Amino acid sequence: MTDSATLTAVDPATGAPGTSYPETSGEELEALLAAAAAAADDERFRGEARVAMLRSIADKLRDRVDEIVAVCTAETGLSEARLRGEVERTWRQVLLFADLIETGEHHEVIIETADPDYKPVPRPDLRRMTIPIGPVAVFAASNFPLAFSVAGGDTASALAAGCPVVCKAHPGHPGTSALVGSLIDEAVAEHDLPAGVFGLVQTASVQLATRLVCDDRIEAVGFTGSIAGGRAIFDAAARRARPIPVYAEMGSVNPVVVTAAAIRERGDAIADQLAGAVSQHAGQLCTKPGLVFVPKGADGDSLAQSLGERVSQSETAPMLGPRLLHGAEAAVSELESAGSERVQLLGRSAPAPEGALALPAAVFATDAAELRADPSLREERFGPITVVVRYADLEDLLATLHELEGQLTGTIQLADEGEDQDAARAIAEALIARVGRLVINGVPTGVVVSAAQFHGGPYPATTAPTTTSVGTLAIRRFLRPVLFQNAPEWLLPEPLRG
Amino acid sequence: MTDSATLTAVDPATGAPGTSYPETSGEELEALLAAAAAAADDERFRGEARVAMLRSIADKLRDRVDEIVAVCTAETGLSEARLRGEVERTWRQVLLFADLIETGEHHEVIIETADPDYKPVPRPDLRRMTIPIGPVAVFAASNFPLAFSVAGGDTASALAAGCPVVCKAHPGHPGTSALVGSLIDEAVAEHDLPAGVFGLVQTASVQLATRLVCDDRIEAVGFTGSIAGGRAIFDAAARRARPIPVYAEMGSVNPVVVTAAAIRERGDAIADQLAGAVSQHAGQLCTKPGLVFVPKGADGDSLAQSLGERVSQSETAPMLGPRLLHGAEAAVSELESAGSERVQLLGRSAPAPEGALALPAAVFATDAAELRADPSLREERFGPITVVVRYADLEDLLATLHELEGQLTGTIQLADEGEDQDAARAIAEALIARVGRLVINGVPTGVVVSAAQFHGGPYPATTAPTTTSVGTLAIRRFLRPVLFQNAPEWLLPEPLRG
Repeated sequence: MTDSATLTAVDPATGAPGTSYPETSGEELEALLAAAAAAADDERFRGEARVAMLRSIADKLRDRVDEIVAVCTAETGLSEARLRGEVERTWRQVLLFADLIETGEHHEVIIETADPDYKPVPRPDLRRMTIPIGPVAVFAASNFPLAFSVAGGDTASALAAGCPVVCKAHPGHPGTSALVGSLIDEAVAEHDLPAGVFGLVQTASVQLATRLVCDDRIEAVGFTGSIAGGRAIFDAAARRARPIPVYAEMGSVNPVVVTAAAIRERGDAIADQLAGAVSQHAGQLCTKPGLVFVPKGADGDSLAQSLGERVSQSETAPMLGPRLLHGAEAAVSELESAGSERVQLLGRSAPAPEGALALPAAVFATDAAELRADPSLREERFGPITVVVRYADLEDLLATLHELEGQLTGTIQLADEGEDQDAARAIAEALIARVGRLVINGVPTGVVVSAAQFHGGPYPATTAPTTTSVGTLAIRRFLRPVLFQNAPEWLLPEPLRG
Repeated sequence: MTDSATLTAVDPATGAPGTSYPETSGEELEALLAAAAAAADDERFRGEARVAMLRSIADKLRDRVDEIVAVCTAETGLSEARLRGEVERTWRQVLLFADLIETGEHHEVIIETADPDYKPVPRPDLRRMTIPIGPVAVFAASNFPLAFSVAGGDTASALAAGCPVVCKAHPGHPGTSALVGSLIDEAVAEHDLPAGVFGLVQTASVQLATRLVCDDRIEAVGFTGSIAGGRAIFDAAARRARPIPVYAEMGSVNPVVVTAAAIRERGDAIADQLAGAVSQHAGQLCTKPGLVFVPKGADGDSLAQSLGERVSQSETAPMLGPRLLHGAEAAVSELESAGSERVQLLGRSAPAPEGALALPAAVFATDAAELRADPSLREERFGPITVVVRYADLEDLLATLHELEGQLTGTIQLADEGEDQDAARAIAEALIARVGRLVINGVPTGVVVSAAQFHGGPYPATTAPTTTSVGTLAIRRFLRPVLFQNAPEWLLPEPLRG
C-alpha cells in the first residue's frame, strides 16, 4: 500500500489500486505545527469569523457531495447511500458546532460578584469562562471516512472551540482526506483566517504520527480507532515532558441482552434489527453488537436461529481495507478453532466475489460460562461478526456481564407487556456500570449528533471516561476554564462583561 | 520519622517528636479497597443519606474544632488562627457539596425527547446524566492539613459525587488525619452507610501508595502536592492495564507583574500585600507569589526595596516538616550560589529559633534576561522565598512571561488611574495563555470556595487542565456521563424521569 513517498488506496470492491497521494514529510509536519501554534495566538481565529468559517465548511461539504461520494466509494467500498448520508451527517454536525459557539454557551460562564459577607472570607469578584486549550492533533478513523475523519466530530469540535487542528488522515482513504482537507483550507482562506487553523498530515508512518503527538506545540489529542492504536498514542502522550489529554475512542463489543419475554413478543423484529446492525457496512461500526445474550431454551434458540438465517442471507460486503479484512478473518478463525463443543457457527453469508476485500458475515454461538472462562471470547471483533451467548438465568447473565470491560454501549431488548421489571433493572444496572450509553429496544448502531448525546465509556471504550466524542458537549474536551478575579471591565473578555 | 510500623510527626516549633501512629499494612489496604468497591455498588450510598452524611461530617468538624486545632498545631507549626480558619473553610466546603448534590445539578441532566423530524435521521428519546466514576484514591496535601487533606476538597467532592474514597493521609500530620478520619467514619456509621465509603491509609511507603493507585478497583485519583510526587502517580496510573484519570494539583511559581504606574499610585500597599503573601504560613501555599516582575528603574527599585524590608521584618515561622525545610534551604542556597552579579539578596527575616524547623523568609532579585537564560530560576521554591524580576520594558516582560510553564495563577498590579490599558491587555493575554486564574490588584493566595472558582491550570500546575480542584465544579472530576436511549419511565433513574 505504501512506499516512502506516496499513499495509495485500494478499491475494496475489486482489490485494484487507486490514485497515489504524496506523503507528508517531516519538514512539512514541522511547518504545519509552527503554523498551528501561530494560528492559536491569532486574534482573527478567536472571534466571529470562526462561526462563518464553520458554516462555509458545511456549505462546501454539501455542495461537493457528488465528488466526495465518488472519491470515497472507490477508496472504502461503502455504499453510495451510506456515504451520502454520512456527508449530510458531517456537514450538519459542523453546523451544530457553529450554532453552539454563536450562543456562547460553550464558554460555560459563571459570574459571582464580590460579596463581603461571604463565609469564611469575603469573596472577590470571580468570573469564570472557558478558552481554547491550544492546537489539537486529530487522528481520523477509517470506518467513518467523513463523520469521524478529516472534517468529522473531533475536527469540528476543536475548531469550534478555537483550537487549530493538525489532522492525521487515515491512510485508508487518502483521496477523500485530501479533498475534504482542501475544502476546509478554502473555508479558512475565504474568511481571512491564518492558514495554520487547519493542517492535513497524510502518512502511514507511526514515527511521524508519534512526532505529532509528542510535539510540545500540541495541547490535546482526539483519536478514533483501535485499542492498540489509541493506547499507543495515549502512552506516547503520557510520556511527554509535559503530558496532555488524549481523548481516544477505541474498542467496544456492545453487549445486547434479549429477554425471553421480548423474543416471544417480537422475536422476528429483533432478529431483523440485529442482523442489520451486524452486517450493515460490513459490521465496521464501533457500536456493532458483538455479543448477543439470549436465554437458554426454546426462545433463545429461536432467536439465535433467526439471526443466523438473516445474516446468512445478508449481502457479503467489502471491508474498508486489507488490514481490517485480515483482522476479521483472524477473529473468525479463532472462533472456528475453539471447537464446536464450545463455539458453534449459526450462519454465514455467501463467499466474497473474486478479488473483493470481503468477508462473509457470520453468527456464532457459545455459552455464558465459556465467555466467563475465556477472556479472548469477550474481545472486540471488528467486522460483520457477532456471537450469541446463551445464559441459563439472571444470575448467570449478571455474572457474565460483570466480566465485561468498559463499553461504548449496552442494549436490552425487553417485552412491552409482562416483562420482569426487577430483572430488567438489575440488567440495566449491570450494563450502566460499564457502558456509556444504554439502549432499550433498539440497536446501538446509529449515534445521533445532538446536545444530549454521549458517545464514550470506561476504558478500553475510551481513555477519557468523563468525555464524549459525539454531540455538542464534545467541545468540552478542547476548552479549559480560566478565572478572572477582580478584573476591571476593560480587561475582561466580552463574555464576562456586564 | 518512620519505622516499619509507625508514623511519628515532629513538632516543627521545637523539633520534638510527637505521638506515634500505626502504619497501614498491605492486608489493611486490601480490606479498604474491597470495602470501597462494595460501597460503590451499595444502594444506600446512592441516595439521600449521602447529603445527610456530608452535613454530619461538617457538624463534627465544627464541633471538634478545639481538639482538631490542638492536635494539628503540634504537628504542623501552623498558627491557631490559621488552623481555626482552615477548619471553618473545610466544613463549609463540605456543606457546599451537600447543598449542590441536594439540588441534583451535578447530574448535568439533558433530556431530548424523540423527534421523528430530526436531521439527518430521526432522534430517539435521549436522556443524559452523570453517575459516580467509582472508588477514588485521594492523596492528601501537607500544607493544608485540613482543607486539602483527609476531609478536604478532593474527599468532599468525591463523596458528594457518590464515589467511595480511599485517602492516603500525608505523613506530616498523622494525628490530625486519624482524628478527622475517625469523624468521617462516625458520620458514615451514623447514617447506616457501608464502612467502605471512606478508608484512611497512613503510610510513608511509596510502594503502598503506588499499590493504591494501581489497584484495579480504583477509578480515579485526586492529588495535591509536589510536581515529583504528582508526576510519579500520573505515570503509575498511565501504565495501568486500564489507565484512569489522575487529577494532580502540583507546582506553580505564580508570577506577579507590577506596573510602574501601580507602584507610583500605591507602592507601599502593594509591598504590604506581597510581603504577607510571601511570608505568611512560611510561604507554604501553592499560590505563593514566587516571581514578582517590577520595572527597571526608580519605581521598581523602590518596590523591591520595600518588599525586602517588609519580609526582613516578618516573623520567621516554622515550616511543616524537615523535608520541606530542606527543600527550601536548598532553593535558597541555589539562589545564593548564583553569584551577586546575577541574583541579589534584598532582605531576610531573623534566624530561626534553636531547634525549630524554620527558615528565614527571603527576597532575592534578578533580571528578566537571567530568568529567560536559566530555567532553574523559573522553578517553584516552596517556602517563604520570592524573587523580584526586573524587566526593561513591555517587550522584555512579555518575552520572559512567554518562557514560563503552566501556572495556577498569574497576577497584575495595575494603577486605577492612568494605566496603559493596551500594555495591561497584552500582559493579561500572556498570563491567561499559561495560568488558570488571573488576579488583578490583589495577591493569588486565598482561594475562595464557590461555584465560579477555578483552581487548576496547564501542566505542571496540574495534570488535568480542564478541571478544578477547588469550588463546586471539582465534583465533575468524579462523575462520568451516561445516556439512556428510549428507556421506559420505570427503568430511568429518578433525575431523568418526567
